[in-house]
Amino acid sequence: MLNSQGWKHESSLWDISMRTVEWDYDLAGLKLIDQRLLPGELKVNLYQDYHQVVGAIREMVVRGAPAIGVTAAFGLALAAFQSTANTPEGLLAELHVSAQEFRESRPTAKNLTWALDRILKAVESGGQLVSDMRIAILQQAQALADDDVRLNQQMARLGATLIADGDTIIHHCNTGALAAVDWGTALGVIRMAFEQGKKVRVLVDETRPRLQGARLTAWELAQIGIPYDIITDNAAGYFLSTGQVQKVFFGADRVAANGDVANKIGTYMLALAANDNHVPVYAVVPTSTVDLSLAHGGLIPIEERNPAEVLDLQIAGQPVAPVGSTARNPAFDVTPNRLLTAIVTEKGIVYPPFEQNLVRIVTGN
Amino acid sequence: MLNSQGWKHESSLWDISMRTVEWDYDLAGLKLIDQRLLPGELKVNLYQDYHQVVGAIREMVVRGAPAIGVTAAFGLALAAFQSTANTPEGLLAELHVSAQEFRESRPTAKNLTWALDRILKAVESGGQLVSDMRIAILQQAQALADDDVRLNQQMARLGATLIADGDTIIHHCNTGALAAVDWGTALGVIRMAFEQGKKVRVLVDETRPRLQGARLTAWELAQIGIPYDIITDNAAGYFLSTGQVQKVFFGADRVAANGDVANKIGTYMLALAANDNHVPVYAVVPTSTVDLSLAHGGLIPIEERNPAEVLDLQIAGQPVAPVGSTARNPAFDVTPNRLLTAIVTEKGIVYPPFEQNLVRIVTGN
Repeated sequence: MLNSQGWKHESSLWDISMRTVEWDYDLAGLKLIDQRLLPGELKVNLYQDYHQVVGAIREMVVRGAPAIGVTAAFGLALAAFQSTANTPEGLLAELHVSAQEFRESRPTAKNLTWALDRILKAVESGGQLVSDMRIAILQQAQALADDDVRLNQQMARLGATLIADGDTIIHHCNTGALAAVDWGTALGVIRMAFEQGKKVRVLVDETRPRLQGARLTAWELAQIGIPYDIITDNAAGYFLSTGQVQKVFFGADRVAANGDVANKIGTYMLALAANDNHVPVYAVVPTSTVDLSLAHGGLIPIEERNPAEVLDLQIAGQPVAPVGSTARNPAFDVTPNRLLTAIVTEKGIVYPPFEQNLVRIVTGN
Repeated sequence: MLNSQGWKHESSLWDISMRTVEWDYDLAGLKLIDQRLLPGELKVNLYQDYHQVVGAIREMVVRGAPAIGVTAAFGLALAAFQSTANTPEGLLAELHVSAQEFRESRPTAKNLTWALDRILKAVESGGQLVSDMRIAILQQAQALADDDVRLNQQMARLGATLIADGDTIIHHCNTGALAAVDWGTALGVIRMAFEQGKKVRVLVDETRPRLQGARLTAWELAQIGIPYDIITDNAAGYFLSTGQVQKVFFGADRVAANGDVANKIGTYMLALAANDNHVPVYAVVPTSTVDLSLAHGGLIPIEERNPAEVLDLQIAGQPVAPVGSTARNPAFDVTPNRLLTAIVTEKGIVYPPFEQNLVRIVTGN
């Protein structure tokens, strides 16, 4: 069933034990669910060349800050196995070049550089054989992947205490199992509350331009059995202002030291509308998403992607925009800390003042 | 070229003298540009049965508050010509039934009921021959259409004073010639500023779910020659918070007595984001859109349309949402008056406190 072209899942049901990002020890390669094809097709691609993994991150075969962090880590393991270097110094030099390619593939997500730095640090001490270094890198990447699942479940348990029985929740983008190795961040919290027996309903922002809400979050919720309605991103304000929503949940791609949050484009306006109606707003992030080197959100680099993502829309097979139109396509925006009720991490729920409390929880001091 | 199935415009360029809504005196019918087909095809439909005009409003062949007001007025003229009543009382009774069908076709736009009431009032005095009544109704509808163009140009001249040379403007939905008989409301203001020689650039919100921005506003701007970029609705907050936008302009479907504005879904979040960044927000509406009978926006009926408008989206020919998904689809939201810098009407620019100043300008007292 599995070949180098990837395989097509026979069942329409997702195998819940399947990971979004997984190393295949038999085939010595990285398996990624191709998220561009969902929900129409559940296909897993196998990668045995790290350059293709860089491309897969850039083209959003895999997306979601935790997932691309772990993908880059495994990608660096691939690079190590591909390398013909025969000294530790030579291998390390090549790995730094490869890591730079990964760093440039998606500029906003903190987890990407965090994961690469963790891997490089593990082998930088030197004093090993080249063959041992390769194994160490793969082991380190595998540890990151396993940690990701464990931390997400921890966040989910903590975050689920914030959800009450009967809540209707607006969720932006996709933050579920597909956005991580498994389980997810904000959607993991909602899933945990549901599995604890709380009645929840999700209003799924479709999340233009890539429609991760309508495509991926709706698909995950359907698999789990959580009731949902898809809404346009424009409609969130209506449901908030008419008292139909009790909580807003989303993830983040990078959090500044003061708690400002860079997340999928549209998060900022959603948080504004929630605040205007006194609806609590929660960002759910592993501490690996927090960038203590940046004092505030204005310093977070915001990726501007291909305008084709905006312009390629069709209705009934017809292109929507006039021929010759141009577009602007920022992929993220910054939600200032004043709009957040709390930030849920695996180490605890952080409340304002975030300037003090976030650093404290991340560093453990 | 013109037949009962409508005709296809030969040129790809819009004939700028063409009206969105126009009575054809030779064919005794109503011509509407079929806005569902734009920008791919410029097609004009001819209607000779008022029931079909009700359907055309409901199905959004024609949309935009001023345009559907005038369409309903001409539709009532069609109903008068179709009627076989031979007494003034009989005709009037039938017209009231027809008017009710129009009223129910789109519940939010004030202009619809305003136009119908104007027509009915003109013939309610009685004392006329049935044949004279039919002519009077058509004349009244034609007067409304001509007034609409004149008032829009007046609004455009007033509103253009608010635009500075070099402004980048975010515009929501479509408020141009297509949304009125000709010229339009908010987009008319931008066009006037451009024709006065001011350099303007428009960030066109695509306006999910019906995409009136990406389809219709982009098309109109291209025809006029005003530079624009299409952005997702989600992206407005990013451009506002990064200092790239000087003004926000939109129209409205109904304005309450206190200045609360019901407009296309998403307007409320756009106005919130503009306010959060001290960017001025202008609603451009003829006074016929103001409903002095409603004290505040919470009383405005909000149409919830077919979920298929949300779910029918495709990318590369593939449906976006998982099979079996449900959706919610409110077509409008209410922007509270506190978020508006001014309301531009044909009688003047209204500033806060709107509670006092709007009534004064509408009633002329």
